[in-house]
Parts: sequence; C-alpha cells; structure tokens
Amino acid sequence: MIKAGIVGGTGYTGVELLRLLAAHPGVELAAITSRGEKGRTVADLFPNLRGRVDLRFVEPDEAVLTACDVVFFATPNGTAMQSAPALLAAGVKVIDLAADFRLRQAAEWEYWYGMKHACPELLAEAVYGLPEVNREAIRGARLVANPGCYPTAVQLGFLPLLEAGLVEPDSLIADAKSGVSGAGRKAEVGILLCEAGDNFKAYAVPGHRHLPEIRQGLAVASGAPVDLVFVPHLTPMIRGIHATLYATLRDPGAAVDLQALFEQRYANEPFVDVLPPKSHPETRSVRGANQCRLAVHRPQNGKTVVVLSVIDNLVKGAAGQAVQNMNLMFGLAENAGLDGIALLP
Amino acid sequence: MIKAGIVGGTGYTGVELLRLLAAHPGVELAAITSRGEKGRTVADLFPNLRGRVDLRFVEPDEAVLTACDVVFFATPNGTAMQSAPALLAAGVKVIDLAADFRLRQAAEWEYWYGMKHACPELLAEAVYGLPEVNREAIRGARLVANPGCYPTAVQLGFLPLLEAGLVEPDSLIADAKSGVSGAGRKAEVGILLCEAGDNFKAYAVPGHRHLPEIRQGLAVASGAPVDLVFVPHLTPMIRGIHATLYATLRDPGAAVDLQALFEQRYANEPFVDVLPPKSHPETRSVRGANQCRLAVHRPQNGKTVVVLSVIDNLVKGAAGQAVQNMNLMFGLAENAGLDGIALLP
Amino acid sequence: MIKAGIVGGTGYTGVELLRLLAAHPGVELAAITSRGEKGRTVADLFPNLRGRVDLRFVEPDEAVLTACDVVFFATPNGTAMQSAPALLAAGVKVIDLAADFRLRQAAEWEYWYGMKHACPELLAEAVYGLPEVNREAIRGARLVANPGCYPTAVQLGFLPLLEAGLVEPDSLIADAKSGVSGAGRKAEVGILLCEAGDNFKAYAVPGHRHLPEIRQGLAVASGAPVDLVFVPHLTPMIRGIHATLYATLRDPGAAVDLQALFEQRYANEPFVDVLPPKSHPETRSVRGANQCRLAVHRPQNGKTVVVLSVIDNLVKGAAGQAVQNMNLMFGLAENAGLDGIALLP
Amino acid sequence: MIKAGIVGGTGYTGVELLRLLAAHPGVELAAITSRGEKGRTVADLFPNLRGRVDLRFVEPDEAVLTACDVVFFATPNGTAMQSAPALLAAGVKVIDLAADFRLRQAAEWEYWYGMKHACPELLAEAVYGLPEVNREAIRGARLVANPGCYPTAVQLGFLPLLEAGLVEPDSLIADAKSGVSGAGRKAEVGILLCEAGDNFKAYAVPGHRHLPEIRQGLAVASGAPVDLVFVPHLTPMIRGIHATLYATLRDPGAAVDLQALFEQRYANEPFVDVLPPKSHPETRSVRGANQCRLAVHRPQNGKTVVVLSVIDNLVKGAAGQAVQNMNLMFGLAENAGLDGIALLP
Repeated sequence: MIKAGIVGGTGYTGVELLRLLAAHPGVELAAITSRGEKGRTVADLFPNLRGRVDLRFVEPDEAVLTACDVVFFATPNGTAMQSAPALLAAGVKVIDLAADFRLRQAAEWEYWYGMKHACPELLAEAVYGLPEVNREAIRGARLVANPGCYPTAVQLGFLPLLEAGLVEPDSLIADAKSGVSGAGRKAEVGILLCEAGDNFKAYAVPGHRHLPEIRQGLAVASGAPVDLVFVPHLTPMIRGIHATLYATLRDPGAAVDLQALFEQRYANEPFVDVLPPKSHPETRSVRGANQCRLAVHRPQNGKTVVVLSVIDNLVKGAAGQAVQNMNLMFGLAENAGLDGIALLP
Repeated sequence: MIKAGIVGGTGYTGVELLRLLAAHPGVELAAITSRGEKGRTVADLFPNLRGRVDLRFVEPDEAVLTACDVVFFATPNGTAMQSAPALLAAGVKVIDLAADFRLRQAAEWEYWYGMKHACPELLAEAVYGLPEVNREAIRGARLVANPGCYPTAVQLGFLPLLEAGLVEPDSLIADAKSGVSGAGRKAEVGILLCEAGDNFKAYAVPGHRHLPEIRQGLAVASGAPVDLVFVPHLTPMIRGIHATLYATLRDPGAAVDLQALFEQRYANEPFVDVLPPKSHPETRSVRGANQCRLAVHRPQNGKTVVVLSVIDNLVKGAAGQAVQNMNLMFGLAENAGLDGIALLP
Repeated sequence: MIKAGIVGGTGYTGVELLRLLAAHPGVELAAITSRGEKGRTVADLFPNLRGRVDLRFVEPDEAVLTACDVVFFATPNGTAMQSAPALLAAGVKVIDLAADFRLRQAAEWEYWYGMKHACPELLAEAVYGLPEVNREAIRGARLVANPGCYPTAVQLGFLPLLEAGLVEPDSLIADAKSGVSGAGRKAEVGILLCEAGDNFKAYAVPGHRHLPEIRQGLAVASGAPVDLVFVPHLTPMIRGIHATLYATLRDPGAAVDLQALFEQRYANEPFVDVLPPKSHPETRSVRGANQCRLAVHRPQNGKTVVVLSVIDNLVKGAAGQAVQNMNLMFGLAENAGLDGIALLP
Repeated sequence: MIKAGIVGGTGYTGVELLRLLAAHPGVELAAITSRGEKGRTVADLFPNLRGRVDLRFVEPDEAVLTACDVVFFATPNGTAMQSAPALLAAGVKVIDLAADFRLRQAAEWEYWYGMKHACPELLAEAVYGLPEVNREAIRGARLVANPGCYPTAVQLGFLPLLEAGLVEPDSLIADAKSGVSGAGRKAEVGILLCEAGDNFKAYAVPGHRHLPEIRQGLAVASGAPVDLVFVPHLTPMIRGIHATLYATLRDPGAAVDLQALFEQRYANEPFVDVLPPKSHPETRSVRGANQCRLAVHRPQNGKTVVVLSVIDNLVKGAAGQAVQNMNLMFGLAENAGLDGIALLP
C-alpha cells in the first residue's frame, strides 16, 4: 500500500482527493494537514466521508509527511514550493495540485503569480502531469505539476490539431466556462449562491493565470509559439468545465478528416473519449468521473474548426488527474481507483 | 455472476440502476428493455455510461427476461404486475421499483393507483424491501416491492420512535422535500428548469400515493394504525429527499435519551447513519450514495420530537435499495456494489 | 417628496430597498451609508442600478440622516438601536429592517440576540410593522419594527385560524423553507453556491431567533400564549420563503369553512392573496413582488389544518414591507411604489 | 389607450409581454388567444398575474384581433405569416416575436425554417425591429419583425466595430450562452431541470437558425457579407444571454480607442449601456429589464477584440424589445412601460 499524505485538505480539491483515495485499492491515507482545522475530524467537515475516512486534520509537520510515500499539495499557490525540496530530499514523491511547478520559466511564474519562486531550480525537473502528453516522463518523476483545470480541457482539445499542424498557431481562441467549484471553497462574496446563481459572466478577460500555462503546453504541441485568446466564464453550476475552442485551418481547401484525427490521437487514452460526429458533450456526462469528452466540428464547412471539450474540473481537472499521475509514478494500473462512473442526472 | 435484466431503463431510476450494476462485482448486465428506444445504445441515451455499458435497448421479450436470474422493473406503475407472474413461474426473481406490490390490500392499491391489480394473489407473498425492517424476509423472497423514495426517508426516521412506543401514533407529520428527479424523466412542463428552478412549492397536499404506503409501514412498527399528515414539496435541486418529521411525545415529562434510542436502533445498519446531537443532515452528504442520514431533536425540550432524514431519492430511495435487496436475495455481501462515496460538492 | 435615507445599504435588503425607492413616485433617495464602501457609487456595487441611482455610499453621519424625513436601517442587529433615539429626537421617522425593536420585552431580546439593548425604553413605543395586524398604529408611528421574513410568512398564515379560535394554540408547527438570500450578502462558506446549491438542509432546529418574534405575534392573535415548533430550512434558490403550517383543530367534528375564513380575513388586504381551494402557491409567483399568497388545506378531512404561505423574503419579507410601512406612516397610498408584478419565469 | 392583442400567450414570451403590457400606462390589454388554453384565466396559468390581468384565453378569432390597434404574435415560427396579411389589411399593426419576417430572402427563410413562406411579398415591407439600427423605419412600420434573442445580443456587440470598419468581416466568432427560457415553455425532456440543471453544453454547432439572421444584420452594418461562426450554449439558469464576441482587428498596429467607439455609438441609446473599461457584465444585471450591457476588451493588446454583451432574452431579447417597437410605432415615449429595474439578486 502506498502511504499518501495530503497537505491542505479543506478545499474542494482536497475533499475530492479524499473521496478518490479513500476508495483506492492501493493507497493508505496516512495524514491530512490543515492549520485552521487542526484536531477536527475530516468527516465532520465533509459529511459525505462519514464512516469512510476517520482521519483528523493535523498540523503540517515534516515528520508526518516524510513518513509518506507521496504527498499531494491541495494548497493555495506558493505553498508546495516551500516544502517540496525537503520532501524530495527525504525520498517522498510530490504532486502539486496548485501552480507552483507548472511553468518552465521562473520569471514568467513570478510575473503571473506575483511572488518570488522558492525553488526555481526544481522547475526543470518537475514534470507537467498531463499523461496524454507526458506519460513516460511522469512514470519516472519525483515531482509532478498537476495541470490546471482550464489548461487540461483546453490542451486536450487543441492538441490533435496542433500536433498535426493543421491550424494556424496564431488563431487560437479558448472560450471556457467553469462551474463555481473552480473558484475553491473560500468565503468570498462573488461565489455566493445569491451572486453566482442564476447568473453568467466572463471574468479575467484582460489576463488569467492559466493563460501562460496553456500557451506553454500548446507551444510544445505546435513546435512553435502560439497566439491564444483565453476567456474564462463563471457558470451557475457546481462542477464542470466546458471549453469551446476555435482555430483557423491552415488550408481550408484541403481534405482533412478531423474526426479520424481526433479518434486516432486518443485511441489508446483511457480517459479521453472522442464522441461521434455532430455531438455536443455535456459537462454532466463527466460529473465525478476522470474523463475528458471531446467533439470536433467544422461549421458550414468553413475555415474554422470548433472543438468542444468537457471535464469535471475537480476530477480530470484536479484530483482525478493527480491520482492518475500517482498511479503512473508508482507503477500501478493507470485507472486504479478511477473507474467511478459519472453521476447523471 | 448474477444475470440481471432491467425492464424500462430509460428513466432516472433506470440509469441509476445501470450505473450501480455496471460497477457491481457480482452482476452481469444481461438485458435492458425499452419499447421507445429499441435498438439505441444505452450509452447514446446516457452518455455517462459510454465505455462502461455497451448494451442496446431491446423490445421487452419473455425469452430474454426468463434467461435472467433477476429482473428489475424500473417502469411506470402497473407494468411489473403484468409480467411478474410469468417471470416468477420461470424461476426468475423480481424486484419492482414501482408501486405494484407495495400495498398489502389490493383494494387500497386500486383506490390510490386508479387501476385494477393484475395479480392480487401475489401481494401476500411480495416482501416490502426495506432491509432495516424486513432483512430476513428479503433474503428468502422471490418478489420484492422496492419502497418508494418518500416512504424510505419517512419510515427510517419514525421507526425508532414508534417501535419504542414513545410518541402518539395519531400525531405524526411528515413534511418532505424532494429534488426534481423524483418526478422522473418525463416531458412535462411542471418539471422544466424554468418552472421548477429557483422555485419552491408543495404539491398533492390533499393526498399523495405514498401516504398509504407510509401509513402501512408505520402501523406495523407501531403495532396499531397511525394518523399521518404527509406534505410533499418540490425543491429546485436534482437529487435528494429531506424529510422533516414531527411527533408528539406520549409522556413529555419522562426522561428519554432520544439520541441513544436512534443510535441503538441503527447500530448494525450499514446504510443508516445517525448523526451526533444537534446535527442537521444535508442532502448532498448522500448524493449518489446508498445512505440515509438521520438527526433527532427535541426543540426547547418541548413535547414535540423532530427528526431530520435525508436520502438520495435515486439511490437509497430507489436503485441503490434495489441493489441492496438483490444482494440479500442472492446471498451476496449486503454492500456489494454499494460502497460509492457521496459526491460533495 | 419624502426624503429617505438608508443606513447600511450594501446587503440584499439594501439593494432591494434601493430598487423599490428609486422607482417610488413619492420618494427622493437622499443618502445611503456604508463604512466599508464609502465613496463607491451604488451602481458600481449593484450594476442593476446603473443609470437609475447615482448616489455614492457615504459614512454614517448624523447631519446627513437628520436631514431626512425617514431613515431605513438595513443593518445587522444591534445597529439601529444605537442611532434611533437621536433620529427620533430630531423628528426623523425610523424603520428598522433588523430585529432591534421587534420584541416587546428587553430581557427576551437580550437573551436571543446576545447583547444589551441600547434603548429598551423605545420598545413600548415601537410599532410592529405588520400592516395586516397593526395598520392604524403604523399610520401614527414614529418608529416601526419591520417584521422578519419568516415571521411575516408564518403569522399571515396562522392569523385567521388563531383569531377565530379554531385551532389548539399549543399545536402549532411551522416548517419553513427559505431561499439563500435570507442569509444576507456575507462572505460565509455555508452560503456559497457550491455549499448551498443542489442541496437542502434544516438549520437552527434547537432555536432560531425568529421563534420568539413569531410566538409574540401569534399570542396576540390568539389572546393567550402559544406553543410553536419552528423549523427553518435552507433551499437552493435565491429568493422566496415557503412556510408550511400545521395546526390541530379544536373541534374536528364541527363544520367550518376554512376557505371562507381566510378569504374574509384578507378580503381588503392589498398584499395578501388567498388562492382557490386545493391550490399550492409557488414562491416564484411572488418573486420581486410585495405579495403573500396563501392556500389552506385540510388533508383527508382530518384534524390537522395545513396552510401554505409564500412571500419573497426580500420584498414582503423585508424591503417591500418597509416601503408599505413608510407609505402608511406618511399618508401615501399604501401600494405606492409597490405595484411591480412578480417575475415569472 | 392602445388596444393590444396577443396571439399565443402561453409561452414565456407571452407571459413576459403580459407582465410588461399590464403595467404599461398607454396600453389596454384587449385579448389574448390560445387554442389549447381556451377559457382558462390567464392568472390561473401564470399566478404572478393574479389580481393584475383578468383576461381569459380565447380562441384565435379574426374579429377579436381586428378590433385591436396592434397584435403581437408570441407564437411558433410559421404562425404569424398566416394571419398578418389580413390584419394589416384591416389596419392593425403587427409585431411578430417569432421569425417569420426576419429574413429578407424568402428562399433563405424557407431553407432554415423548413416550410413554405405564406406571404413572401411582405418581407420587403417588414421592418427588422432593432431600434438601435432601424429606429426611423420602425416609427413608420405596419409590420415589425422583432429580432431573435441571440441576434439582439450579438448584433449590438458587433455593430460599432463593423460600422467603423475596424475588424475583418470574415473573422467573426459569436460564442453565446443562453438561459433555458430561450428554449420556450415546451414539454421536452432536454430542458427539464434534471437535464439542463447543473450542466452545460453547446448545441446546434453545425447550424442554428439565428445564424442567417445575425449574418444579415451584420452584413448591413459592414456594408459587405460577413463570415460568422456562431456557437450557442445552454446554461443552467432561467433568463439571460451572454454573448462573447471575437473579431480580428484590420490593423492591429493602429491606435484605436475602442471604449470611446462604443460609448459614442450608444451615447443616445436608452437601452444600451456601455460599461467602464475592464468590466464584465453579468446577466443578472439585466434580469427582467429592457437593457443590453456591453463591455469591450483587447486582451494583451493583441489583434483580437473581445466584446461581452448581456441581455435578458425575454425582455430586450423578446417582449421588452417588442414593447419598445410598439412605443415607436405609436409615437409613445420609447421607454414607456419599460423602466423596470433589474431584479438583483
């Protein structure tokens, strides 16, 4: 059994990790830390875990964590980078669900996240945990940067087009819609039911922190820098991301079978599902499941390709993908603990 | 492996049965029938099942169903009673998720359901599938009447009080609130998002079909007829029932430890969870899980006991309880296939 | 034109007062105060008011407020009582939308609200602002205690029964369900969309602050103390209260026309609407409107009367009723500024 | 008083027209027709109108309608075109809220709507009722084609850019999100609360009927055909459209003040509100109000302009705009009956 620790398990990513790890056949939940909730039982905070998780929150403590085989950070940005070097030195593998190790360039990270990076020397070693791109590297990694929720949905949608060189890399638009759980479990007015309910709005149009992360991944796929407009929106639902992606074909006159392209790209991917032609994936079809479902369209046979990509932001966009990465890092079946079926309705 | 068939699997109870049975370690999904969707793949109708269920809907057909070990009816009222006799005669066990076999008296059934009963002779044999009351009988049953969603939540809440004779049996009030999935997957204006969303109302106050079913069960627990006022309400959420139950103490002056009473009554029940004193269970704490969570209160130490009872109407209130009954009928572990943790948030 | 000031206009009660007063033909919005938002335009905080209200929030200031004819307090409990004496002394009428002047007994108020009352000498003068009970007193009042949202819905539903002496005064149960806006516009985890959405729960079953307020009003109607069990619930919607009320008939054998009783009681009330027999009022039928809609039932012709009562908690349960009281206090038409039709869907 | 009739008032557009016209100072509601609900009171179907509208639905009847000054068609597509010629001949003005008269070319209409047009000779006379473009023509019109909801939001957002020739007319993308009321009040499974709630999806990506209508309007603004990709989405809320619009600047290197451009274009428009720079309009800020709110962005100062446009699909996207058109056609103040403030929260 893999001994797993979770730092900062009081948010939505934390409770989702607990839900998945508590039912994982190869994992023993060893410790969960929280300064604010120290001493409280996990099941008291998250009543869905009553009878299934009997841990209490403990103070973050190096001895507790270095006794683990793997430590997940479900913390605000800037936390994992404080502890990762010591844990790695102690032989503990680290999966950061926040952004500390997602960008290759420390300067870019510091620009977007507004703080000094505590261990820029680890950025080169950290593996970006998108298995559909970096599976082999993840298997050998000590430190995995779990992708953001938007970046997962957007990259999986654009990858086949960019890898095949079919679209103009300066024509990319990602119009993304997220459920409110993407904003976390924080006492903020803007995500109250009475503010975010029965309402729809864009936010962060001038610039969102996931923009450089997405650009970085797409540039690798494209083999060259890309130009991306990224507009996130807040949707009155709890879970789910729907990314609507637009790209201009390099040669609109050429025959190209987009459906086959997508199906072949993801033929062996256990957690990416390409829907039949003319489909419209629904976020609820992946609610609670570690799945990305995609559909590709070419409206009016025009020059623009439209890709529809849905994930559950807390699963394939966070905790589920983290477990998938752990499975790879420890040589388990990639889908161990990840075979839950989406809850519909 | 138990070969299971489902009749009428196009509603919410059906898709939930499919979700549970597809992941059940001891069950092989043998057939699912639907006249209206004949030939369509199940995964096309319910995209959450893509890659997990590869059946197609077939026409209801005796040969197909008699080859099963058990047949679930997830059909409108009045359907199972047409087919149950032949299936039982062929040695197939039957679990009806509708109401055909829930009432002991044919005349009462015919009054409330407005049709002639097709096989009243089976009513005496049918076992009411509330394992917390009838576990042993269910183990030996050929025909199980799976309880209604409201009746499950209401009975589990009142049982300890009535069995102990602590409350006046003519003082019972059940104020119950249901998510909209309780109304089924039907093309009706009243359950449109724009009608039922951001809205709250009572319905069927003059008389709801679950009233006689609840009264029947409570009378057994009480050892005498009970007087019950039952008011159901429609709540703008998808899954979940919250029953708020009121009963008058027979002897308000006597010392009684209500908390201990409830904890002892359900001490060995795997799917009933009594919360600590002063708790308020939330429906989301059982979303997708085969659980009933209860709390008992005595406000201002007055003469009225208040019990709060929550279930997921599609799981402990329907498909999950049906699987629990199947497990009992076939000698499997009672919780086989039922260990999914509730999805929160 | 009546010059109106609002103290503490950054919550939902505040924005609703602004919406109503901005369109009121006899009112000039003179000032709105908020320490936290000082200097910000009202329309920046509440974009629905862009182009309609061009005030800025100002620091609470006696000079500003004493220049008004009436001051509304849309503040937390314990605020209005600090300023009311000085305003009254300056000849300004005061309407408190919080609880400071709702209870007759200072000791009871201090018990439930956990603080010392700043001006208990005003409690006898303050008029409880339920026009359907105290219309004449309100016309002559300097200080009005605007009723709570639950108390409005519950009292209007029970009044006809108690005034007529038809029900046992110790048999009252009020099972009330509120939209989340009733909890205010506060940065609290429990009312986040991801906590309160797609979820239902009771709260404060051991004792809610509206209990003594309701009991006080019902005792007046009854002419004697009443025994009331009050259980509030949080419903996943924005606006609306649905109170389901239960009472035991004194003489179940006597003939009584409950429908006529309710219709006569409210025949001349502009803002109380008794629905036809067998109706089920919906909260959305009063969304945004200063209305209470009622239906009365006697299920199975039994001993229990069931009353269904709906209001918009922010209108008839708060800001609309406050405007209604203002209209009475200043001799305006009672419905001035209150003729908006509910928004449905 | 203008005598107004409504044909087909049982849908959401119908009830919203009734809400607006019942409170309109210059209108007398003369008749409302519905075959299906003949004889039923309007207030019985729409309880928000109790006490405010005392009409009953009547059979569609020429005599009733020709006695009106104006007739609104809140009917399915293909209905108004059957009756409009006779009404116009009788001197009655006609406003069609459906699509019958929106497209200039009968052949294009027949292609998208799948039926023969009954009076193509009226297409040239019909005025497209977008007052921000066609105000003068509307004043003189007998027959107004009220714009679709998506077309209103999309055109108002793109117009300033296209009229000024600032963007490439073949670069337009409209990613639009609608509340579920846009789908109407129809008994269809796809818009049940349990299907559309807590869920997000695109639909009709291969081609939506509003595409030709938008293209037609934008081509006029542009002075040449435009190439538009239009992707509508269903959002789990009741009212509101949010259109996120993308266009490529013709000359990204040129200095251009987009904010000023939008403010000047709409400086005199009573129902279009340009927000300050860096704003993100919310759909709830126009809930129930005849308003369009816009914000214009240029992310990272790149080549792409992003416009955010919100309306209430039932008001500025349907019934409110119809009343605005009626006001113009009859020489009333353009905002008569349209000064309701949006309901927030």
